[in-house]
Amino acid sequence: MAKVKVGVNGYGTIGKRVATAVRMQDDMEVIGVTKTRPNFETLMAIEKGFDVYVPDASVEAFQKAGVKYAGTIKDLYRKVDIMVDCTPGSFGAQYKTEYAEAGVKGIFQGGEEHGLTGISFNSTANYSESWGAQFSRVVSCNTTGLLRTLFLIDKEYKIKNAYVTIVRRAADPGDSKNGPINGLEPSVKLPTHHGPDVQSIMPWLNINTMAVKASTTLMHMHTVVAELSRETTTEEVLEIFRKAPRVRLVRSKDGIKTTADIMEMARDIGRDRSDMYEIVVWEDGVKVVGNKLYYYQGVHQESDVVPENVDCIRSMCKLAEKASDSVRKTNDAMHIPNKG
Amino acid sequence: MAKVKVGVNGYGTIGKRVATAVRMQDDMEVIGVTKTRPNFETLMAIEKGFDVYVPDASVEAFQKAGVKYAGTIKDLYRKVDIMVDCTPGSFGAQYKTEYAEAGVKGIFQGGEEHGLTGISFNSTANYSESWGAQFSRVVSCNTTGLLRTLFLIDKEYKIKNAYVTIVRRAADPGDSKNGPINGLEPSVKLPTHHGPDVQSIMPWLNINTMAVKASTTLMHMHTVVAELSRETTTEEVLEIFRKAPRVRLVRSKDGIKTTADIMEMARDIGRDRSDMYEIVVWEDGVKVVGNKLYYYQGVHQESDVVPENVDCIRSMCKLAEKASDSVRKTNDAMHIPNKG
Repeated sequence: MAKVKVGVNGYGTIGKRVATAVRMQDDMEVIGVTKTRPNFETLMAIEKGFDVYVPDASVEAFQKAGVKYAGTIKDLYRKVDIMVDCTPGSFGAQYKTEYAEAGVKGIFQGGEEHGLTGISFNSTANYSESWGAQFSRVVSCNTTGLLRTLFLIDKEYKIKNAYVTIVRRAADPGDSKNGPINGLEPSVKLPTHHGPDVQSIMPWLNINTMAVKASTTLMHMHTVVAELSRETTTEEVLEIFRKAPRVRLVRSKDGIKTTADIMEMARDIGRDRSDMYEIVVWEDGVKVVGNKLYYYQGVHQESDVVPENVDCIRSMCKLAEKASDSVRKTNDAMHIPNKG
Repeated sequence: MAKVKVGVNGYGTIGKRVATAVRMQDDMEVIGVTKTRPNFETLMAIEKGFDVYVPDASVEAFQKAGVKYAGTIKDLYRKVDIMVDCTPGSFGAQYKTEYAEAGVKGIFQGGEEHGLTGISFNSTANYSESWGAQFSRVVSCNTTGLLRTLFLIDKEYKIKNAYVTIVRRAADPGDSKNGPINGLEPSVKLPTHHGPDVQSIMPWLNINTMAVKASTTLMHMHTVVAELSRETTTEEVLEIFRKAPRVRLVRSKDGIKTTADIMEMARDIGRDRSDMYEIVVWEDGVKVVGNKLYYYQGVHQESDVVPENVDCIRSMCKLAEKASDSVRKTNDAMHIPNKG
């Protein structure tokens, strides 16, 4: 069977990771990536052997800088089946029109509104909803993190109310422009967008989200209280998390006390870019009291959505009918442990 | 009327502030403060004109360093009516015995357990419970912050459940030993001590607390969701906060976006040590949806309990029968705006 031909629009934090992840699969291939500026990331893409395509408006800058490019974005459209759009938020509407005109499929990221595509994607929660679709949207890093755990908890216990505080990283590790570097910033606009974003996939869930930006670059952290429809035990919930795809349990008592420890562990694992694709739940921070479940989870904002993008390509391009088959295949290729 | 004679045991973060605050009152006076080591804080205490008393075990170190001291702690006990104990947590039991033997009253801080005194103190919630008591305990900075707002909300609306996440500062500004400096640390032992500590004063309150330590030194921040017994409006709740003692409303739209902005404002106000005694609530971060109330508040961990210590002295030494009278007097002396 011919491999699905993938273009990655935007080779930034998410785009470069998606390109690498797609390249690791045997049923899809990267035809090219796009860049608007001939900066170091462009040079790295070329060094890694990716063909770089540019928008018309960037041609002059690339020529001036003497950086070779393979063609314009429109040339790329003619060669691919699907574009994974990793451009900054709010460019989606414009590119959706271009993809539609070129007759290619398009995956957008969580920076875009659910309304852009009408379908949002998460491998655990709704893989089949994007089956054969022309457009879909992989939800944001935080929403992906919440869905990976809350969906399975809700399936088992029917959540009456979920209360989530998201302690957000201030900036990505490579970003030295943004802050705060010593301070905490509440997201005063309530509800924060995270709750409604989870509801784009679980519309029935009562979820209340608040968010505080903190002086860290490594990961987001969630505190979650879920009021369940019935009583349970900590051990029963841990069993669900142990089997949950792309959820990794760690223990404070093993020395994983902070997100810095998690990222140190990720570097030890040895994956591409030292990423942590799994949502990390503190096993000794999971507690059930009656019908209330408490837990903490860490979200590696740069990478948790990357395997979901690969699965989303499979669903939209009809490469694997069952979610579990796609997840297993993606995981195997990306060295993410499979469970069960 | 003779002034109440106060000793401050420990001249660290809280002790030095309590000493200054007591000195500003006209119905009490600082007889002396204690230090175990002749370090820079000791020299600052002397420079500010406080008599420094030392434990027997420290006499040699002070003599060696050539730092003058006024006597031993036991000498101090003979001169005072009440000791405000600001020693590090867990020294309380030992000192309580000493205070009892010396026949002086004692106030402990939130680092000690409620069980040490059997009475805990907050000016808004239970001023009169410490009336004439020999021992009481001013609850911790976070608990004080929660009581200042939740007590009044509960009084008006009867809270069914409160869900609180505490984003904790990693270290105080003057502390360069502790971290994390880039990371987030969940408090995996659940429930965190904050909920039970609030319940030491409001035993009827269903409160669920989780906590994450963040890379900041300035303030703690709380996200609060309170499920009320009846529906209300954002404006009605704001009216309660506007009248709440030692609660300050700020607005993100005025440029107070982070805790760093709050501390900058505190420096502009011009109080001792640029402290922010009030709990700071973001006005545009208060939201009511049906019977659910959401808000964010900032807690200046170094100083919010300081006016409560002054009020606690007044209650224990029977200087003012009504909480509102003591609060007004303390506020006037410390340049904290009175309300209503």
